Amino acid sequence: MTHPRLSMNHATIKHADFDAALAAVTAAGYESYGTWREPVQAIGLAEAAKRFADSGLRLSTHCRGGFVTMPEGEARRAAIADNLRGIEETATLAAAGAPGSRAVFVLVAGGIPAGETGIADARARFADALAELAPEAEAAGVTLAIEPLHPMYASDRAVVSTLGQALDLAAPFDPAVVGVTLDTFHVWWDPEVLPLVARAGAEGRIATYQVCDWKTPLPADVLLGRHYPGEGVIDFASITAAVERCGYDGDVEVEIFNEDVWSSPWDEVAARTATAFDAAVAPYLTATAIPTLVE
Amino acid sequence: MTHPRLSMNHATIKHADFDAALAAVTAAGYESYGTWREPVQAIGLAEAAKRFADSGLRLSTHCRGGFVTMPEGEARRAAIADNLRGIEETATLAAAGAPGSRAVFVLVAGGIPAGETGIADARARFADALAELAPEAEAAGVTLAIEPLHPMYASDRAVVSTLGQALDLAAPFDPAVVGVTLDTFHVWWDPEVLPLVARAGAEGRIATYQVCDWKTPLPADVLLGRHYPGEGVIDFASITAAVERCGYDGDVEVEIFNEDVWSSPWDEVAARTATAFDAAVAPYLTATAIPTLVE
Repeated sequence: MTHPRLSMNHATIKHADFDAALAAVTAAGYESYGTWREPVQAIGLAEAAKRFADSGLRLSTHCRGGFVTMPEGEARRAAIADNLRGIEETATLAAAGAPGSRAVFVLVAGGIPAGETGIADARARFADALAELAPEAEAAGVTLAIEPLHPMYASDRAVVSTLGQALDLAAPFDPAVVGVTLDTFHVWWDPEVLPLVARAGAEGRIATYQVCDWKTPLPADVLLGRHYPGEGVIDFASITAAVERCGYDGDVEVEIFNEDVWSSPWDEVAARTATAFDAAVAPYLTATAIPTLVE
Repeated sequence: MTHPRLSMNHATIKHADFDAALAAVTAAGYESYGTWREPVQAIGLAEAAKRFADSGLRLSTHCRGGFVTMPEGEARRAAIADNLRGIEETATLAAAGAPGSRAVFVLVAGGIPAGETGIADARARFADALAELAPEAEAAGVTLAIEPLHPMYASDRAVVSTLGQALDLAAPFDPAVVGVTLDTFHVWWDPEVLPLVARAGAEGRIATYQVCDWKTPLPADVLLGRHYPGEGVIDFASITAAVERCGYDGDVEVEIFNEDVWSSPWDEVAARTATAFDAAVAPYLTATAIPTLVE
């Protein structure tokens, strides 16, 4: 049986369109699905929401926004507008999803704009964007989930590199409005990861928990070096137990960026993901169902 | 004029033998040189020390030891013995070098041993190795300089990933015996880098300051993605100023791992390194000579 808290993040079956993804995920017995913007936009939000409602799946997250580190100007205004659309998509899909759906919009900060030296200005501009987006998210009932990315992406993808930094950025806001995305791939190496998970839990900021594994050598494109849980070096026992101790009882997404996974049939990927999850992650989960479903 | 605090780390001219390196570095007007073990061992320590003394150069560091994260057994004993040889090499070369030479032996922790899951045990075993090596270093008058490496190397090369972690590991020991290696490439992304540099200075732990730049895309072998200062995104102004505020007044090494740099003529590399250093780093140095020389 597929674990009731396991969610398939669409990035793991990246080349599936929305219908193919829903079909693969439901056929494999998943209860939950984490959407990405492109396949939703390809058929339009209203149609995607309708088909999502028909699928009977929960929404775990909608991925992803952010990428707002540029100075004020046309490109920044376009990025803010795009994030506002993402907030609307998230609210709509969550409302269409089964009970227990989470209106969580994952934010990746963005990198250092071309030609700039230093990372401090880009970080400050991402913080400014949060302040601009938070009231809109609150009005829509959406949680913005800042995702710290592994420091190897600090220059070109995410100037937010640690869970501590993400929590500091979230601190000025209501935890229902700004939280963090906790992805094992990005934080496993941090000597402070366990105390930081505890802090995130105490502050009510864990908006989603994502799992995949790290191993070396990294591929030529370091973005694509993610693996099924259990295939690498990450200690899912200690991190997952720390997340559970915080009282996190939501879905757990498997999000894998990997060319070999992407080129495999989606039903195979869905089955293998469930098997890997059962072996490497599920034993450390204490809640075995989503609370909203059992109420 | 080549900056008096600029040191050529041998890794930047990796394929030069010891004599060729000394010739290139002195011809380019450097006062200081950071040795690597292989070219020293190729001619023998006594002979290397003699030729180094004849060169008139200072020693900035000797690179490198560590790689002791394995469990107790034959391989670990061999690694400890190798580190003891490195301590002896460092003391001998520093004694042979010009006044102002620093007996600093750089330590890279090592990765997670094959087949292990989780990073905590490997970290603990590196801490154990420090406790075993420190008395030997103290007896030899050598400072062990723990080098935190970028988190992308956490699994296969260095389980010590942040300056804060390196300082915590050094804390039980006299700062003259265990310090840290501060390399911009490895720490630039850390949101806490400036306060951590200040902490390192306040605790007397900055054993050496190394500079090279970060830019993306990373090469297929992520070990080799280092660049001349000023060619990437690192803010050398703020980090260098923070190091200087601590009172660090020693040599500053340029250490670049890059196939293109390695395949260039060594005199060209030495000249280009000096030019890049003058533009990107030197303006933020307050002390312009090595104290021992001017006393």
